[in-house]
Amino acid sequence: MIYADHAATTKMSETAKLAMLSAIEENWYNPSSLYTPGQQASGVLMDARVRISRCLGCLPKEIYFTSGGSEADNQAILSAAAIGKRQGKMHIISTAFEHHAVLHTLKKLEKEGFEITLLDVGESGIVDPNQLEKAIRPDTALVTIMYANNEIGTIQPIGEIGAVCRQNGVLFHTDAVQAAGHLPINVKEDQIDMLSLSAHKFNGPKGIGVLYAKTGVFLTNLIEGGEQERGKRAGTENLPAIVGMAAALEEACALQKERSIYVTKLRDQLIAGLKKISGALLNGDEIRRLPGNVNFCFLDTEAEGLLLLLDNKGICASSGSACTSGFLDPSHVLLAIGRDPQTARGSLRLTLDYENTPEEVETIIEAVTDTVRILRGC
Amino acid sequence: MIYADHAATTKMSETAKLAMLSAIEENWYNPSSLYTPGQQASGVLMDARVRISRCLGCLPKEIYFTSGGSEADNQAILSAAAIGKRQGKMHIISTAFEHHAVLHTLKKLEKEGFEITLLDVGESGIVDPNQLEKAIRPDTALVTIMYANNEIGTIQPIGEIGAVCRQNGVLFHTDAVQAAGHLPINVKEDQIDMLSLSAHKFNGPKGIGVLYAKTGVFLTNLIEGGEQERGKRAGTENLPAIVGMAAALEEACALQKERSIYVTKLRDQLIAGLKKISGALLNGDEIRRLPGNVNFCFLDTEAEGLLLLLDNKGICASSGSACTSGFLDPSHVLLAIGRDPQTARGSLRLTLDYENTPEEVETIIEAVTDTVRILRGC
Ligand SMILES: Cc1ncc(COP(=O)(O)O)c(C=O)c1O
Ligand SMILES: Cc1ncc(COP(=O)(O)O)c(C=O)c1O
Repeated sequence: MIYADHAATTKMSETAKLAMLSAIEENWYNPSSLYTPGQQASGVLMDARVRISRCLGCLPKEIYFTSGGSEADNQAILSAAAIGKRQGKMHIISTAFEHHAVLHTLKKLEKEGFEITLLDVGESGIVDPNQLEKAIRPDTALVTIMYANNEIGTIQPIGEIGAVCRQNGVLFHTDAVQAAGHLPINVKEDQIDMLSLSAHKFNGPKGIGVLYAKTGVFLTNLIEGGEQERGKRAGTENLPAIVGMAAALEEACALQKERSIYVTKLRDQLIAGLKKISGALLNGDEIRRLPGNVNFCFLDTEAEGLLLLLDNKGICASSGSACTSGFLDPSHVLLAIGRDPQTARGSLRLTLDYENTPEEVETIIEAVTDTVRILRGC
Repeated sequence: MIYADHAATTKMSETAKLAMLSAIEENWYNPSSLYTPGQQASGVLMDARVRISRCLGCLPKEIYFTSGGSEADNQAILSAAAIGKRQGKMHIISTAFEHHAVLHTLKKLEKEGFEITLLDVGESGIVDPNQLEKAIRPDTALVTIMYANNEIGTIQPIGEIGAVCRQNGVLFHTDAVQAAGHLPINVKEDQIDMLSLSAHKFNGPKGIGVLYAKTGVFLTNLIEGGEQERGKRAGTENLPAIVGMAAALEEACALQKERSIYVTKLRDQLIAGLKKISGALLNGDEIRRLPGNVNFCFLDTEAEGLLLLLDNKGICASSGSACTSGFLDPSHVLLAIGRDPQTARGSLRLTLDYENTPEEVETIIEAVTDTVRILRGC
C-alpha cells in the first residue's frame, strides 16, 4: 500500500508515540493537583509548552492547548471578532479558499453583523499583499489568511501579510495547520498575532493542537469551566497528547530542512510524471507550494472514480479537503482559483511525506496514468 | 504512594491502553477518506459509537464525540439555550453546586438575557424533584442537573428529575462526568435528553468525551468546520482516543456492580475511620453518594496544609474540584450545602477506586488523624 494522503493525517512517529506512552504511564496525574505527582505533571506540561514555543518563536505563555486545528481556528477568529466588536470594528478579511473551520466561523459572524471580505487568490492560489492592503478599512478587526493551503499546497507570503497587518494595526491570524512542522515558522519575525496548528498533521497525536496568541491579544473562551490554560480553555489537560505533540513538533522542526529537500524532489518527480498525461492541469503555483503537495485536475474524469480505482491499486489519495471528501462536490478551493465546476470535479490530491520513496512515486505515476485512461474509456 | 484522587483523573486501564495503541498503529487513517484503510477506520469509529451507545442505552446516532466533559457540557447547554431562544424560552434551571463547565456557561447565558434559577440542594446535597417541578415555568428552556457531584459525590434522583422534565416538556441535560462507568446509566429509562461524560474519569484516555443528545434535539456547533459527527462537531476524529474510551467504558460497565460493592466497602471503612476525629463533618449524604467518594470538613484546619502534609506521607488527595484546586478558595459546592466559608476551607476529598485496598484505607485514616492533630497544634 502506498499512502499519499499525508495532508489528511499522518501516522504518529516513534518519538511522539513513546513520549505519549510514557506520559500515559507516568504522568497521567492531574496537573492542577497539589501533590507531588500532580506537580510533576504540571512541570511536564510547562516543559512541553516551552518546547513548542521555541519551535514557533514565541513565549511559552502565548501557547494555548486546544483539541486540534478546528478548535484553534474557531477560538482565534471569535476572539478577534469580540475584540473588534468592543471597538466598533466589524469587518474581517480572509480568502475564499480557507479551510471550512475558518470559512464556517466567518459565516457565523456574518449572521451576527460582521462584514466579510474574501480576497481573490488568483489562478496561482497566492494572495497579493498589495490587494490585502487596499482591502483594509478603519473598521477591519482581523485578517485571517492560511499559511499554506490544504488542497493545493500554495504558500502565502506570510511575512509580507504580517507586515501589512502590523503597519495598519489590524490583528493577523494564520491557519498554519498544513505548514507547522513542514515549513520554518517564526511568529515574531512574520508578525503573526494568532496561529493555529494541529499535531496529527506532523506525525503527532490526534485530538490536540495549539492556538498561539500574542501577549495582549485577549482570548474569548470557546469552552468555559475550569481555570486551565490561564482560564482561556477549560478541561482537564490532555497531557499525554500534549507531550506527544511537543516531541513530534521538535522532531519535525529539527529535520524540517533535510526532509523538505527530499520531499520536494519527490513532489517535482510526481508533478513531472503526471504533467505528461493529456488534459492534466496542475492546481496552484508550481514552486511556492508545500514540499509534499501535488494537485491536478484531469479533464473528462471524475474524482470519485479516480480515487476508487487508485484504491484498488493500493494507493491512498484524496480529491481535496479530507473533511469533506465524503461529499464529492467540486472543491471550494479549486473554484476559488478559477477552475470551472466540471474541471474541479476531476481533481486528485497526492500528498507525500519523508516516508515515501521515488519508487512509490513511479508507481503512482503509472497508476494515475492508467486510471485516467480507463475513466476516459480510451 | 496511595492515590486517593480518582475523581480528578484516573490512570488508563490496560484494556483501554491496548485498544488505543492498536488504533495508533493500525487505524490512524482519516475516517472521512474513501480508500480502504480510511473506510476501515470509519468502520472502527462506527463500532465504537455502537458500543458506547449500548453502555448508555441510546442509539449510536445519538452519540457525539467531543474533547471531554467540559466541551460536552458547554455544547449541551448552549444548544438547549439556542432551541429555547427560538421558542421565546429564556429560563434555565440548575443547581448551585454544578461543575464550573456548567455554571460558567450559565453565567455567559445570563449576560445574554437568560434567567437562571439555581435550586437549593440542602445540607444533604440532593435535589428535591418537587422543588424542581415548582421551579419550572412556561418559559423554561432547560433543566441541567449533574448526575453525581464531583466534590461530595451525592447522587441525584435522575429518573425522577427526568420524569418531571419530560412531563413538563422541558429539555433535561445531566453532567454525568462523575457517574459514567461508576453508576449504571440508562438515558432512555431515566428520560435524559442530553448527557455529558469524560473518558479519563473511568480509566479511559484524556481529551475525549461524549455528548449524548436524544434524536430530535438540535445541536448548535461549538466548533465549526468539517462535517464530522454529522456536522455537529468539526475536527479530524480522534479515533485512537475514541477507541480507548469505548474499551474503558465497556470494561467499567461490565465490572460496575462488582467494583461498586468493593469500593463502597472501602468508602464506608474510610468514613467510619475519619468520623472518629473530633470536629470531623461528613459532607453530603452518607448513603446516596458515589461508591468511592469521601469528603469531610475538619474544623480548625485548612485544606492546603492538610494536602501538603498528606503529600509528605505519600497520599494524593484533593480539597474539592480538581480544576480549581490551584486556588484554595472555599469550594462553591460546600457553600451550596450550607457550610460556612471558614469550615469549608478545612475540606478534604478522598476518592477511591477498585485499585485501592483496605490496608491503604487504614493508612489514610492514620495519616489524616495525625495531620489534623498537627494542624491544630495539639
Ligand atoms: C462533574 C464534572 N463535570 C465536568 C468535568 C470536566 O471534565 P473534563 O475536565 O474532562 O473536561 C469534570 C471534571 O473535571 C467533572 O468532575
Ligand atoms: C488548513 C487546515 N485547517 C484546519 C484543519 C482542521 O484541523 P483538525 O481536523 O485537526 O481540527 C485542517 C485539517 O483538516 C486543515 O488542513
